[in-house]
Amino acid sequence: MLADTPDPPYVAVIFTSTRTEGDYGYETMAETMMELASKQPGFLGVESARDGVGITVSYWVDRASARAWKEVAEHSVAQRQGRKIWYSDYRVRIATVDRAYSMHSSTFDGQDATTTATTATPE
Amino acid sequence: MLADTPDPPYVAVIFTSTRTEGDYGYETMAETMMELASKQPGFLGVESARDGVGITVSYWVDRASARAWKEVAEHSVAQRQGRKIWYSDYRVRIATVDRAYSMHSSTFDGQDATTTATTATPE
Repeated sequence: MLADTPDPPYVAVIFTSTRTEGDYGYETMAETMMELASKQPGFLGVESARDGVGITVSYWVDRASARAWKEVAEHSVAQRQGRKIWYSDYRVRIATVDRAYSMHSSTFDGQDATTTATTATPE
Repeated sequence: MLADTPDPPYVAVIFTSTRTEGDYGYETMAETMMELASKQPGFLGVESARDGVGITVSYWVDRASARAWKEVAEHSVAQRQGRKIWYSDYRVRIATVDRAYSMHSSTFDGQDATTTATTATPE
């Protein structure tokens, strides 16, 4: 499901990973972490897919809430045990979303993005 | 494959989508677009997965190169024809990555992220 985030700016945590062979409780952990994330203060939404590479993008009101989630995740037993068991590699990128548009507010009809997109900092 | 991006800051274009039923040339278009992206000026890398939701995150040197890619993509026949044929919904988010770390430079060992992560703006 796609995340219905509010108008920018907000923060995206882009977590990309490759898995090791075998489950080792990974699926259960992943579901638990997703539930946990959605209960954190400042949570706006999450989008996730795995297909060779795994990509989970979680959205947060601000850096403080993204950072707080990071600490919760890192300190959870699941995450601390999982590093080498579950992942062969990963990247975490913290980013500020300052522009966003959806299928129904895009430039694909030839409209100008600067007038139809939700924009935090006009270009 | 995970993208080996340089130290932040750089720009991430987060494209998330849900598909319609049927291929309609989607796979071919997706591969072509990926090849096309990798040849654009300022391209740093891309990560992509589809599993119910599709997530493609492309990384760019700066906003100008991300914007140029967006225009190339939108003006390609594939992208213009594909909107309603291929996607039931999508979101595009443009974000500035200002912090990043990988499995081998993370805080999961109890180290302080501010000393081990590649950081554009120290917190």
